[in-house]
Order: sequence, then structure tokens, then C-alpha cells
Amino acid sequence: MRNQNIIMERAIARLLEERKYLVVKDILITMLPGEIAGIFRALKSEQIPVLFRLLPKELAAKTFVKMDPEEKELLIHGFSDSSLREVLDELYADDVADLIEEMPANVVKKILDTAGSDMRRSVNELLKYPDNSAGSIMTTEFIRLAPDMSISECISSIRNSGVNSDTIYTCFITENGVLKGRVTVKDLLLAADDDLPVRNIMDSNIAAVTTLNDQEEVAALFNEYDLPVIPVVDRENRLVGVVMFDDAMEIMEEEATEDMEIMGGMSPSEKNYIRSSVFDLFRQRIPWLMLLMISATFTGMIITGFETALAAQVALTAFIPMLMDTGGNSGSQSSVTVIRAISLGEIKFSDLPMVLWKELRTAVLCGASLSVVCFFKIILIDRMLLGNDGITLTVAAVVCFTLIITVFLAKSVGAVLPLAASRMGFDPAVMSSPFITTIVDALSLLVYFETAKILLRL
Amino acid sequence: MRNQNIIMERAIARLLEERKYLVVKDILITMLPGEIAGIFRALKSEQIPVLFRLLPKELAAKTFVKMDPEEKELLIHGFSDSSLREVLDELYADDVADLIEEMPANVVKKILDTAGSDMRRSVNELLKYPDNSAGSIMTTEFIRLAPDMSISECISSIRNSGVNSDTIYTCFITENGVLKGRVTVKDLLLAADDDLPVRNIMDSNIAAVTTLNDQEEVAALFNEYDLPVIPVVDRENRLVGVVMFDDAMEIMEEEATEDMEIMGGMSPSEKNYIRSSVFDLFRQRIPWLMLLMISATFTGMIITGFETALAAQVALTAFIPMLMDTGGNSGSQSSVTVIRAISLGEIKFSDLPMVLWKELRTAVLCGASLSVVCFFKIILIDRMLLGNDGITLTVAAVVCFTLIITVFLAKSVGAVLPLAASRMGFDPAVMSSPFITTIVDALSLLVYFETAKILLRL
Repeated sequence: MRNQNIIMERAIARLLEERKYLVVKDILITMLPGEIAGIFRALKSEQIPVLFRLLPKELAAKTFVKMDPEEKELLIHGFSDSSLREVLDELYADDVADLIEEMPANVVKKILDTAGSDMRRSVNELLKYPDNSAGSIMTTEFIRLAPDMSISECISSIRNSGVNSDTIYTCFITENGVLKGRVTVKDLLLAADDDLPVRNIMDSNIAAVTTLNDQEEVAALFNEYDLPVIPVVDRENRLVGVVMFDDAMEIMEEEATEDMEIMGGMSPSEKNYIRSSVFDLFRQRIPWLMLLMISATFTGMIITGFETALAAQVALTAFIPMLMDTGGNSGSQSSVTVIRAISLGEIKFSDLPMVLWKELRTAVLCGASLSVVCFFKIILIDRMLLGNDGITLTVAAVVCFTLIITVFLAKSVGAVLPLAASRMGFDPAVMSSPFITTIVDALSLLVYFETAKILLRL
Repeated sequence: MRNQNIIMERAIARLLEERKYLVVKDILITMLPGEIAGIFRALKSEQIPVLFRLLPKELAAKTFVKMDPEEKELLIHGFSDSSLREVLDELYADDVADLIEEMPANVVKKILDTAGSDMRRSVNELLKYPDNSAGSIMTTEFIRLAPDMSISECISSIRNSGVNSDTIYTCFITENGVLKGRVTVKDLLLAADDDLPVRNIMDSNIAAVTTLNDQEEVAALFNEYDLPVIPVVDRENRLVGVVMFDDAMEIMEEEATEDMEIMGGMSPSEKNYIRSSVFDLFRQRIPWLMLLMISATFTGMIITGFETALAAQVALTAFIPMLMDTGGNSGSQSSVTVIRAISLGEIKFSDLPMVLWKELRTAVLCGASLSVVCFFKIILIDRMLLGNDGITLTVAAVVCFTLIITVFLAKSVGAVLPLAASRMGFDPAVMSSPFITTIVDALSLLVYFETAKILLRL
């Protein structure tokens, strides 16, 4: 599919240069908004407004939503007031609200000046909710019915609503603004008697979120209930909007990407990789690298503290990387598992005893197996095959004992820290491999040298 | 929400013990299938069939789908043929196909013996598609219309279809089985003239997948097109099923979890954390720990090879953990970013030059900044504050030079390996932090000691 896009991008760029606009238009109307947005990404900036003007009104608006912020800004700067108004009229209020959030102040002013007063009111409504809340992602366009309307009145109300969106398939019944129930177009179409009040067939047992719920929780609800749309209510249970499944999908993807970025030791970014400049990547990555480098000072101090012992038994140095890596890997296994389980709502802080008990038993199994294999590896490979005589049975014992303790510590730290972070209101993903590796490194080196001092009488 | 569940679980368990079945039934019908499945998870196994029999037929089937395999198996063993048949009749063919895939052979036999012949045919149809393909996740229940049907005929065809699912809102138009177009219930309801043939209002420009497309690609399409349902066609473009948005959401979540598990150095598992036994976790984790521990032999060999140099300059040992960790973190930043971008379809192998160029420039920026800070840290803290006289300006220079090279190598390896893996048909997530750390450790130690030998004349 991507290969086709490249061929298509080249073809359209060439046709635009040759001013064969009608041909381009005929091609564009066979394509989907997401595909057209892909074409824009590949064009030179002076070609972007030309191509955009070739799109029919509705397709233009749908494509606009799918475009990258830089291209949107470029287009808005070039628009006359009337053509900007045309595009805005085709957009949903939540898309305009999103647009306003990503545009610089002068562009925002142009948008608000141009938008109709209805649109402006809906957008301001949405903008007052905190970032990443259900209120900020909901749409205010949906069908509202009264409990006493008959089924045929409901159907004609839908036909006349002019709501131009997939939200029409689930309608909500309110009384004085308060959410009372839900009815689907399917229920209305399949109802036996068209004169019954909708109250009789509505489903009054429905999941709703409040405007201030976190978007991640909202997305998790979609997964739990398999619904196409979830209503959003205010504190008085009045219906103020709905969140659609496609917005929830986007959020799930964003949140998973964000978690992975944080777990990989980066600040999360809303730009995708291709759009990120080298400087964006630098800013995302350097704070963590700096922090973790500085905290490695402690590990350095521990090694310096045991310099005499190390000088007496140089063979010990050779196992430092293996102990550190195994500790890091064991800790990261536990932390990734626990972080993901927290994200998916499977566990929370009060499950700490259960999680810790499970991780500790796993640690014993893993530590013991690793230790046995490591012992034979040290004796058979390092000592006999590679002929390193500094490696005595006692050295092997020190290494293997440290290994068990390291795995045990790593899995405890990896299980406890993410849960503790979530309890304290931090993102648990912060407590992932890079952070845990630093802690486990220091702990395992301490155990290693203390054990060596005792067993090897250094 | 979870707290409410715990209270509810306790209440229901107690009411069941007191045999207050009618009260339990009244509570259950106010709950959603996902919530009821949560209650089952908390019950003793002898209570499970009792509670299940209290559920009304449709709710029972919906709850059954949401239950864990162990509980499903337990229930099926206890079912009479007629009650199993009742549950199966309420399920969609794709749910039954999923069920068959997760049940042991004797249970599968019982299911197939009991299911009606229509159901058996649909299920077998679905089962012949490879795991994780579009064919294996599609449902075969959807509305099929002919191009010449009038709009009013279409509406009554939907009303009479008996298809009891949200798939009815998007209907597909086929001619001799071949997919011709799509029409939504909204289009039908809002159409001006009920006598027009549906051919006139259908959208013939639609995205479809084939039965053998990977489920991850299918989920990505949902994100690209914001559609509630995507049609699945065979090689002759005949429509054979549809994939619903809720199945796509589940897949996105599963795939993200799988990627994170692999990135954290674990084999992916389909069980959630709470359901995983200690032995499950052990089996998921030990192969990677073993492999990575054994490969650390190389790092050990490198250190052993430079034992004499290290003995002459013991201060060098103190910086080994910092260099290894910074290398590991830099590499993991790049690999996580690249792996996620591959998963989301943003980049592929042919983008390697672009990715590498971006990562290398970022590496230079990160490496240079780290190196400058590190130099001052070594001189001001390690040498002057902590009074470690072994740390000369030359030692600091060796460490900082190695740091730049390490970051450079780590970012190159972290960018190239995941893309190379995807090219060779492996899951790119395998090429993540643990694996890359092992490679980068060995490389950075080599650079460290070789630089030390030259600059410190060891």
C-alpha cells in the first residue's frame, strides 16, 4: 500500500506541475481522506494550497483533519476568510477545538474571527476542559431524544437532525438535560410498534463518563464494553457530549506510544518520528540520559570504595557487566509487566502484596536457574576452556550468590516502584528499565563486593 | 470503579451462599457483561455455574464471551447439551471460532457436536484462516444488499435481516458476490427519494482487506480511516466478512502489550498478569535472561583481556557501569522509537538511510552534551570533591571520548537492528533494549580499553 502511495505522490506532483488540474481532481475523488493527507505530506509547500483547492468541499474538510499541523497552518495562512469559513463549517466542533490547540496565537485569532457564532460557542465549551480529559475529546454533535417521543417521532427526528456523523446510530434520551437512557437506530428500526414511547424500549442501564475523567480511562471503557459511543455527563449527570470509538482508538494508540517512549527513557512527544526534527529528538532524549549518567556516579563510588578488594582479585571485574545486565533485564521484565497491567486497569496500588508475592516467587525460580547455569558456565567455559586461573570455585560461588540476590532485588524494585509511582499520581511508566537499572546496578554491586569480601577474605 | 466491584463481588458471593437467587438476578440485570465477567473471576468454581444460570439468555451469552478460558471450560463441562446449544445460538460465529481455538480437544468436540449446522459451517469457514489474519478475526454476520434494490427495499431488508449486531449500520452492496460498494443506514435514512436504486447513493470507493492480511495491518487501517467496520474480501474480491471496530481495538491493545513484553525481554503471553501463574511468568522470562546472561560472556572476555591494563589503572573500573548504562539507555531510546514507528506503519526498511541519518545527528548532539557534562562531573565531583587522585585529566578524556563513541554506536545499532529484523520477517520488537544493551556493552568496552591503552600508554 505504501508503494502505491509513492507512485501516486510522484504522479500527482508531476500532474500539478503540468497544470493538469482536472485529471488530478478526478484522481483525488477516488481516494480516501487519510490517503490524500499522505499525498500532501509529500508535496512541496507551494503545491499544497493548489491541491487543496481541487478537493470537493466535504472531502477537503475530512482531508484537512488528517493533515499535519505544519500543513494546516500553511493552508490557513493562505485561505481567504470565505474559504476558511467553508472549511470550518464542514468540521466538527471537537476537530476545530483540536485545531485551535495546535495552532499559534495569530492563526487561532483568524480561526475564531472566521468561525460562525454557533461553532465558536461549541469550541469554547470544549476548550474549557483540561487537556486529556473526556470533556476535551468529546463531540457535542449527537442526537438527543425525549422519553415520551414515539418511535416514529424518534426516527423522523433523526432524519431531520442534520447531524452529519456516525454518532446518529446511538441516540440518548434526556429529561431536563439529565441522561436517562440510550436507544440505537437498530432498536428503533426493529421495534414492533412505531407508536410506543421510546422510554419503553430504551436501555437505561448505561455506562457514562464525566467531563473530567482521564482520556485513558475513557479508552479503557470502550475496550471493556465494546460500545461505538460513550456519553459524557457533567457533575449533575446532565449529558454534555459523546466520545466516539474512533477518538478512543486514537487515544489508545497515543497512550501506548507515550508509555513506550517513557519506558525507553524519553520524554513523550506528540510528533511522529518522521515529523520529529533532530533537535526534537535531542530534547526528548537528553534529559534522561543526563540524569541517568549523573546517577551512575553512585555505582562509580561503590566500585572506587572496593578498589583494594578488586585489585586483589582482578577476576571479579570480568563479571560486573553480566551481573549488571542480568539485574537490569530482570528488573525491566517485572517493571514492563507491572506498568502495562496498571495501564490496562488490571492492577492498582492495593494489589501490591499479590504482585510482590508473585514476582518474588518468579524471582526465586529465575534466580536459581540462572545461578546453576552460570556456575557451570563459569567453571566449564571461563575457567577450563578459556583457562582463566583467577576464577576459583569461591569466585564462582560469589558470582552465583550475587546473581540470585540481584534477580530478587531487581524483581522487587521492578514490581514495587511502578505501583508506588501510580499511587503518588506519577505516570508508572517513568519507573521502567532505565531508572530501575540504575538502582539495581548500585544494589547488586554492593552485594557483590560485600559477598566477595566475606567469602574471599579480602 | 474497581472498589465498587470488590464490594459487589463480596455481596454477590454472600447472597449466593445464602441462596438469595432472585436478589442476585435483580442485581445482575443492572450490570454490563464486562462487569458480570469480573464478578465471575472472583467466585469459587462451584459458584460459577449457579450464577451463570441466573442470567437471562442474551446477557448470559454476552457475559460468556467476556469470561476467561478457564471459566468458559468449567461452564461448558457442566452444561447440558440443550443449555450449551442455547448459549452457542446467541454467540456470533467469530466468537465461537475464538472459543474453539482456546478450548482443549474434548471441549471442542462437545461444542461442534452441539452447534447447529449453520453455525458449524460459519465457524469452520473462519477456522481455516491463519492465526492473526483478517479472516480469523472477521465476523460473517453483516448485511448484504444488491445494487438494484431501492432504498425502501434496503431499509426493509435491514429490518427483516435479523442480524443482531452493530454491523447493520454499514451495509455492503455485492454483485455475484463481488464487493461493489458501501451504504450506511444514515445514508438510507437521509436519502431524499426512497425509490432510487441503492446503486445511486452507494459509496463505491472503499477500503477493503483480504482474508490473509495481518490483523495488525487491519487495526492500523481503522485508525487511518476512522471507519466502524472494514470489509474483508477473498482473492477474487468477493466479500466474505467484515471486521468490526471493537475487534480492531482489542487487537491494537494486544499488539501494543505484545510489543512491550518483547521490548522488556520477555516472550509475549496471551494471559493477563493476574491470570498468569508464577510458572507462566518464569517460562515467559527465563529464556531471555539465560540467553542474555550467556552472551555477557563476551563482555567478560573483553575485560579479562584487558586485565593488566585495568590493574595498572584501577580508576578505569569505576566508569564501566556509567559507560554501559549510558550506552544501553541511548540504544534503547533509538530502538524503542524505531520499533514503534515500524509498528504504526510510519517507516519501513527502505527508510533506513533517513532513519540512520536522523539518529546519527541526534547521537552527535546527545554524545557531545553528555561528554561535556561528564568531563566537568569527573573533574569537579570525582576528582576534587571525592578526592580520587587516580582520576587524571587523561582518564577523564578517555572516559568522555568513549562516551561519545558509545552513544554513536548505540544509536546506530538501535536504529538499524529493528529495521533489519522487520526486513527479515522477524518482529522488530525483539531488537530492543536487552538485546542491544548486550551488543553495545561489548562494543563500548572495546573502545574504552583501546582508547585507554593508547592515551594512557598502558
